[in-house]
This record gives sequence, C-alpha cells and structure tokens, in this order.
Amino acid sequence: MKQSQMLIPTLKENPADAEIKSHQLLVRAGYIRQIASGVYSFLPLGRRVLRKVEDIVREEMDKAGAHELMMSALQPAELWKESGRWNTYGSELMRLHDRHEREFALGATHEEVITSLVRDSIKSYKRLPLMVYQIQNKFRDEKRPRFGLLRGREFLMKDAYSFNESFESLDESYDQMFRAYSNVFSRCGLDFRAVIADSGQMGGKDTHEFMVLSEVGEDVIAYSDTSDYAANIEMAPVVMTYESSDETEKELEKTATPDQRTMQEVADYLGHGLAEGLKSIMFKVDEQFVMVVTRGDHEVNDIKLKNFYDADIVELASEEDTRQLLGTGFGSLGPVNVPEDVEVVADYAVEKLANVTCGANEEGYHYVNVNPGRDFKVKAYTDLRFIEEGDPSPDGQGNIKFARGIEVGHVFKLGTFYAENMNATYLDDQGKSQTMVMGSYGIGVSRTLAAIVEQYHDERGITWPSHIAPYQVHVLSLNPKKEEQKELADELYEQLQSTGIEVLYDDRKERAGVKFADSDLFGIPLRITVGKRAGEGIVEVKERQSGKQDELEQTAVIDFVRQWFSKE
Amino acid sequence: MKQSQMLIPTLKENPADAEIKSHQLLVRAGYIRQIASGVYSFLPLGRRVLRKVEDIVREEMDKAGAHELMMSALQPAELWKESGRWNTYGSELMRLHDRHEREFALGATHEEVITSLVRDSIKSYKRLPLMVYQIQNKFRDEKRPRFGLLRGREFLMKDAYSFNESFESLDESYDQMFRAYSNVFSRCGLDFRAVIADSGQMGGKDTHEFMVLSEVGEDVIAYSDTSDYAANIEMAPVVMTYESSDETEKELEKTATPDQRTMQEVADYLGHGLAEGLKSIMFKVDEQFVMVVTRGDHEVNDIKLKNFYDADIVELASEEDTRQLLGTGFGSLGPVNVPEDVEVVADYAVEKLANVTCGANEEGYHYVNVNPGRDFKVKAYTDLRFIEEGDPSPDGQGNIKFARGIEVGHVFKLGTFYAENMNATYLDDQGKSQTMVMGSYGIGVSRTLAAIVEQYHDERGITWPSHIAPYQVHVLSLNPKKEEQKELADELYEQLQSTGIEVLYDDRKERAGVKFADSDLFGIPLRITVGKRAGEGIVEVKERQSGKQDELEQTAVIDFVRQWFSKE
Repeated sequence: MKQSQMLIPTLKENPADAEIKSHQLLVRAGYIRQIASGVYSFLPLGRRVLRKVEDIVREEMDKAGAHELMMSALQPAELWKESGRWNTYGSELMRLHDRHEREFALGATHEEVITSLVRDSIKSYKRLPLMVYQIQNKFRDEKRPRFGLLRGREFLMKDAYSFNESFESLDESYDQMFRAYSNVFSRCGLDFRAVIADSGQMGGKDTHEFMVLSEVGEDVIAYSDTSDYAANIEMAPVVMTYESSDETEKELEKTATPDQRTMQEVADYLGHGLAEGLKSIMFKVDEQFVMVVTRGDHEVNDIKLKNFYDADIVELASEEDTRQLLGTGFGSLGPVNVPEDVEVVADYAVEKLANVTCGANEEGYHYVNVNPGRDFKVKAYTDLRFIEEGDPSPDGQGNIKFARGIEVGHVFKLGTFYAENMNATYLDDQGKSQTMVMGSYGIGVSRTLAAIVEQYHDERGITWPSHIAPYQVHVLSLNPKKEEQKELADELYEQLQSTGIEVLYDDRKERAGVKFADSDLFGIPLRITVGKRAGEGIVEVKERQSGKQDELEQTAVIDFVRQWFSKE
Repeated sequence: MKQSQMLIPTLKENPADAEIKSHQLLVRAGYIRQIASGVYSFLPLGRRVLRKVEDIVREEMDKAGAHELMMSALQPAELWKESGRWNTYGSELMRLHDRHEREFALGATHEEVITSLVRDSIKSYKRLPLMVYQIQNKFRDEKRPRFGLLRGREFLMKDAYSFNESFESLDESYDQMFRAYSNVFSRCGLDFRAVIADSGQMGGKDTHEFMVLSEVGEDVIAYSDTSDYAANIEMAPVVMTYESSDETEKELEKTATPDQRTMQEVADYLGHGLAEGLKSIMFKVDEQFVMVVTRGDHEVNDIKLKNFYDADIVELASEEDTRQLLGTGFGSLGPVNVPEDVEVVADYAVEKLANVTCGANEEGYHYVNVNPGRDFKVKAYTDLRFIEEGDPSPDGQGNIKFARGIEVGHVFKLGTFYAENMNATYLDDQGKSQTMVMGSYGIGVSRTLAAIVEQYHDERGITWPSHIAPYQVHVLSLNPKKEEQKELADELYEQLQSTGIEVLYDDRKERAGVKFADSDLFGIPLRITVGKRAGEGIVEVKERQSGKQDELEQTAVIDFVRQWFSKE
C-alpha cells in the first residue's frame, strides 16, 4: 500500500492520558484513535494487526474442533432474567430500550444467548459435545476505563462455549481449549503463564487465566522459579511447614501501649519484630462473626477464609459491630478472652509461635507472652494467608516469585449454572433427561494486541513479532523528488507486492527524518531504504528489532526478504 | 466438518412468521436463528456463507483502493449533534446512556465518526483522496422488522467513505465504488440493476441503489427492455411526447354527477374512459397551495412536484383547507375557476387534451368539454406523473418495464453536508482552507445473503452459487452402521479435506430420507452419497442445482470435484 493514500496519523507527542507504552505507541503510530472514554476505532494499520491476531485465534479454535458462529450484540433482557444475571451483573452491563420500550442488554458476554440457542436446538446426547465460538465486539461499561486497549468499554473478544454430557467430557473440552489458548499466545510471541484463578460465584470448578507477564498488569501472579506452576496470588495455597518455637512459655502479661495503633508501631514500642506479634482481624462470614489471626508479618487472604467456610459473602466487620462484641475498636484486637459468639480461626503459622504479642481488646493495652493453645482457643488452624515471595511452590518444585500480568484469556468450567437456570437439557442414551454441563472460554483479542506491544517495543516505537506486524516490509524512498530514487522505489514496491509480500511504501514527499521516525514507530520487521545509492541499484535493508543493517543489490531484495521470513 | 458435531438445527416446517423464501429456508436449514424481533444469530453454516460474501466485498474494496478500518458501535451523541442528525434521524437510531449518564448512539451508520476521525487526522490535499471501509454490525430500530435478514434491526454492513478535494475527484471515487459494487454483486451470482435513486434531503447529487431483482423486493424499478437504464420508479422522467387532440373544442358544460366520487365512477357515469377525465389533487408545497392536474389514468409523482418547486416539504392539502379554498371536498375538484391563491400545475399530457371532464368544485357536479388553456390557466405544464410500463425509456432506447427489487447496495455523493457541519477542511496546494467533499457507500452484507437465497432456491431448499455455498461438497454415508459404507465415507471425507476441498460430512446415524432432505435444504453444490455400492468402491455424485447425478469410482472423486469447480 502507498502510505500517501492511507489514514495513518502519527503523533510526535504522547497523548496526555496515555500512561502505558502500548497506549502511547498505538496512538502515536496511528493504529488506534479514541472515540469516547474506553472506546476506540482501529485505523488501517491497527485493523491489519487485529486481523492477524484474529486469524491465529480462528485457526486454533478450528483446530480444537470449535465452530464459528456469530450471535447478536442486542440481547433481550428476558434471557438475562432467566439466568439471574440481569440483577447481579451490575452497571457494567449496558442496557437500552427499543422503540417499543422492550429492554435489551448490549452483549458483555454471550452465555445466555448461546444457552438459549443450544437448548432450543439440541435434544440428544448424540449431538454432544458441542464447541462453538465467535469473534465480536463486546460492551462493558467499566467504571474507570484506562490503559488504552487494556481496559476499554467496547473491545474485540473471542468467546467460546462448550456443551457437554458430563463433567468428564467437560474436562476434555477444557483441556482442548487450554491447549488452543497456549498455542494462540505462543504464536503471538507472548511471554505468558496459564494461571490458576478464582472461579468466583459461578459455581464453576477449574478456571485458568492466561496472563501476559508485564509490569503494567493489574494482577499479581505467584509462580514457581523452577516449574510451570502459576496462580493468581490469592489462589496459591501456602504449603510451608512451620517449626515449633523452642522457647519456654512465659507468663501472660498485659502491658500498656499508649497511642500505638498499627502492628508496626506496637512492635517497635515493645521492641520486637513484626513476626512476634499476632494480627487479629474481625470478619463477618455470612452471618457469623469470625476473628482471623495470622502472624504479624502475614496478610489475610479473604478468599481462603471464604473457601474455608464455604461462604457466600465474606466482609470485614464494621468497627461498630466490633466494639459491641469486644468492647474495643480495630487497633487493640486479640484472640484472648473473646466472647463465645465470635469464632477464632488462625493461620497454620500461628500454631507454632510462643511468647508473642496481641491486642488485649482494651484500648491502649496489649498482651505479651501470649501462647496459642494455652491463652486462647481456635476453631481451626488452616491456610489463611497470602503466599509470599520465597515461600515453597505449592507443587513442591522450587520457590515462589511474583510477577504482574495482563489477563488476555480465561478458560472456565461453568458446570451447570446456566443450564440449570435456563433449563438446557438433553436426553441421554437411556432416554433420560439430563442437564447439560458447560464451559466458557474467552480471549481479549484487542487486549492481546496491546499486550504484544507491551512486550515488543523500544524507545523509538513498536517492534512487532514478524507474523503479527501489519506489513512485512516497509519501503522508503528517501527523496522521491529525485527521479532515480522514485523509480527504483516504485519498482521495488511493485516487485515485492507482486510476489505476495505485504509491503507498505512510504512514497510521501516528506523529509527523511520524518520518514525514519514514522517507520520506527510503526515497527514493521524489515525496512528497505532507497537513498543515495539508488543510481547504482543499491538499497539499504534494516531489521527493526535488532537494528542490524546492510546494503543489498536491488536484484537480491526479493530473495533476501523471502529467506528472512522463512527463517522467522 | 462432521455434521454430528455441528450446530445445524434443521426444521421440517416453515416458521410461522416467515413470509418469504429466504427467511423460511435460512431458518429451516439451520443457517440463522431469531434472538429478538429483527435480531438474528448466524449459526455455523450461516457464518460460513456470510464470510464468503464478506471476503468478496473485502477483495473488491481493496482492489478499488479503499483501506479497511474498524470504528466503534458506540458513538457519542455529541458527534450526531454536530452533524445535526441527533434530532433528525428519529427513532430508528438506538440510543443509550452510560453509567455517567453520557448519551450514546449505537452505530446505524458512521458518517459522523469517520468525519471526525478524518478532520482530526488529515490537514493537507496531499493525503486526498482517501477511501476507507469497514465490515461491521449496524443497528437500526426498524418500526416493523420483517422478512428475516431483509429488514432487521441488527445486521452486517459494509460501509465505505471517500474524502475528496473536489466534486471532480468525488466523481472518480464514486465511479470506482460503482464498478466495485457491480463486481461484488456479479461475483455473488446475482441478477441486479444499478438504479438511479432519490438523493433525498442530504443535499447530495448522484446516487444509485443496487437492486437485486425479486418479487419480494419492497421497491419498484423502472427499467428499459433494451438498454441498461434503470431507475427507482419515482425517479424516472417521462420523456413521452403527446399528440394534440384533433377534436373540435365543444362548449363547456356543467353536469350533475350525483354520488359519483372516484375518477372511475365519474367516467363510467358519463360514459367515457379514464383518460378522458382530469385528475385534480390539492397539495401544500411548503406554504403554497397547488392543484396538480394529470390525465385521469395517470398517477401524480410528488417527488417530481417537489423538485419542480425546489421545495422542502410537499404534502397533500387537508380536506378542511381544500373546502376553505374551493368550497368543496376532494371528490369534485377541478382546475376551472380556482381562486388566485391556488396555483395550478399540470402534467405535459394534459396540455394536448380536448373536451375532457373535470370536477366543478361543487359537490355532485362535473364540467364536461373542458379544454385546457381555454377553460383554465396553468402556471406550467411539466413532468408530474409516474412513469408507466410501455412508456419510452428515458435514455431513448426501448420501452419501460417494471420489476421489484431488493436494495443490497447504495452509492451516494454526499457532497459537503457533513464536512460543512463538522468543519472537515484541508489546505489546498495554495495553502488555502477548503471543505472536504465526501461520498458514502453501503452494502448490506447479511441482506445480500438473503437476496442470494431469493434467487437461488427450489421447492426442496437452497441452491447456492458454487462459490457462495458454505461447503463445496456434502458427503453422505447412507447407513453408517454398515462398516463398508462408514469406512468408505470416512476415507472420502479425509481425502477431500486433505486436498483443501471444503467438505461437510453427514456422519449422523439418521435415516437416509432425513439425510437427503437436510442435504437438499442446505444447498451445497455437490453431494456425494456413499450407499449400497460402497463395497465395490462406487459412490453417487449429484449436482444440487441441476439435479444431474452419476455414479463414480471412489478413486475418480477428487479429480471430478476439482474439475467441476474449476469450470464453475
């Protein structure tokens, strides 16, 4: 394509609101433009890259045995009421009325629509398992859209759904999708981890998130420095075993700690480390008040608490409730002498401590020489804390490290949540009605594009992996006013184009500096510059990623380009 | 693909609400399913066909020099207020609020968004002309969605826009698009006409609609039986010249016509033909009352009236206004002795009449022996009637015939309407600011799919053109319980698949009758049936369109299929 005829508005400066590299570079290089907060248009360069990612996704979905379909963005409210999500999805779901005052949702996801389609179409076990997918814009009214394509309100997504006869069959579909997802992100050139994630309230069992490692990611991953174990930090169990203290138990004492509120202040005041104090936090677990006790240097993981109680809702108790129950506020809590209607649970680490400090449930006082078991009773010792860097990996191999990740994919065993609510059943081989078992599988296609840029850029612009770039070759004529340069560049462009190589040709009458800067921004893998030595039939070839450059005879260019890409 | 694993829910009966063939067959054959009134999902077979049409559109757009981009469906109201269409577009535009109560439109079309993008990106004549397009779901809240994909509320559209320096340059872009559209619809195998259309209120100049000829079309086309002239019926000028009557003028007489209200009743009562009466209709043209007079057998074309007056609004006068002006109601109107504040205009045909009848502006009375010119004055004789079958074609070649058409494409010279309202300017080669000149070009992609079915079906199902069909070959194993049939069919499927031929394989354990009926419904061009002679390695090949069938050795199948498609 000739650049002079294309809509590629490059910018010299970063947009004011663009905090991260992918946002800055995609806007500056003319790939995307914001239409409204969190809503973007993909300009021709952006559309091409998006299509390359789409094509990879499509190929891997087809290979996994999923069939493409296309559902509507307009979804009748009735379907969301059937599943129960019309009320629970909240204000992220964009809603509207048609001219007859019928309520619709704009597709944020398509579980309801596909479940209704399949329940009306499939009656027999003979048609199961079924896997379908679509690639389509989704709408979610994010409270705080930001980071360009990473957190938008309209974005391109691949969503897939499996319908299975049984949980065993779901496991198979899930594994197929898991492999397909690994292939997709590998082919996109991404450094990623498949991470054990929280299945939330959907009643699902397994779920993994595919996380691209990146400093700008909003999630923290705990991964093994040795194996491929990785989990969202809140999901990683602590498998560490603790040594019992060999200290002799001393006598329990109450001591004044005037004006010392935080764990750190109390520890400093009493002259010991954080790990020699107990952290006590009051929760309300469904209707039960629970005091959770951990070692002072540990953080309570409320998802573990929720799972321990198999609870629906876990929240911090209010300070008012706490005062009523214990006669004191948050700064002075401790497990000694708590009333019977408060359950005490403690992290494993607590069990092995001796002669530690805790709040005395009295403003300005702490106990010292507290010994668990002797001085307070617990309902249970269990795993209640967040994993930390250096902890042993839960799979027994190596130690935990932390990294930040951008979630680009999510595979999820939905189980029977939707099928039950929406009555999706089939007849088994005995003619008996059974509930379908479902899985759902998403890839953020436009977000993946941004994640690629986060991993592929340098100080001058984007450095696309070769099979993701919008074009393979960028031809520049340095000074098209010089006849010999223009002729040679025109000729090269035609030759490359006619051999099926994807070429962008900068034929603009702009200064060489502008052309080089734009070219670096775009990030096309190979640049061929037609300049001063055009008269001799010699051009310059430069690799965008490595910066390596060389001079070439014009006649050798096609072979060089072909070979270069066949090696990639 | 194996049919047993695909979502292709066929139906034996037509859906109750499906009035036309494309709607009936696409639902019955499992290509589409309704989600809400006018809102459809494309199931896997439908998605494949849609993609084939998309690909043809994409190729022709690229060839025409347009670049693909993708704008958002969410469009801020501010842009529509700038263009003025927020108020004028009416209730077809779907509107919603985000969580911060900001107003948005759901993209019904993208003139506003693209104009805003281009005005912010392009400053110089050097970057013009520019042509861009996208293929994307559009939203229009039709008052009465019907006919399946023909009139939906969410539908797939290709929309393209050109930005030009001048009207001459716009003409070139328009011609390029016109040719591309002709190519698209030819490649889709459609019998269509490019039809001169009404440019409406957009201030545009030329506009053509691409109409697929079909009895179920909602528009009537007037076309020449000899040349390629075609126009929407209201746009075709009448170029007929009329002979003067050679009758001697007789004396004007008023005669009683009690209880005769319609033209036909009066003509019968007075014993003459419709063509010997004058039809007189009162209009309000902007603020002026106008009596339009045509020959009794002709129909008034109000678009011609509007154009004659260069008016903004043309509407029928109310009966109340008419009584006030002429002292009588609609049944007795005529041009003799009308008051001065009513202008009389007449169709060319009226001028040459003699001794005809007209209403006497008096309940129950008509004039006979009326002679135009002698008995009433007209402001002008002009072309005011609808063209009729048999009239000479406006291009001077042949005579007019009528046909009904489905609008599948529209090319439109927008001119400066949007660029002026939204301030899209560029600097010309003298450094002077100029307003951009725009064109807009639409193809209803999903509607095109339905139009193809309207032209390609028989009593048993769809009969796709070979390059539009979802698959090239449909392999049926008649009785897969018989090992030899299953083995041969499996083998054929693998062979065809591995040579890159698109195969659907009916591997289901269903009765032969069910399989044949489904196969006919689907409309895949070639069917290969593995049946009784499987043991001898012999299969049956059948062409869907012609019904021609033949037996073939298994070993000859691949060559046969390849040759068949290379000839298509």
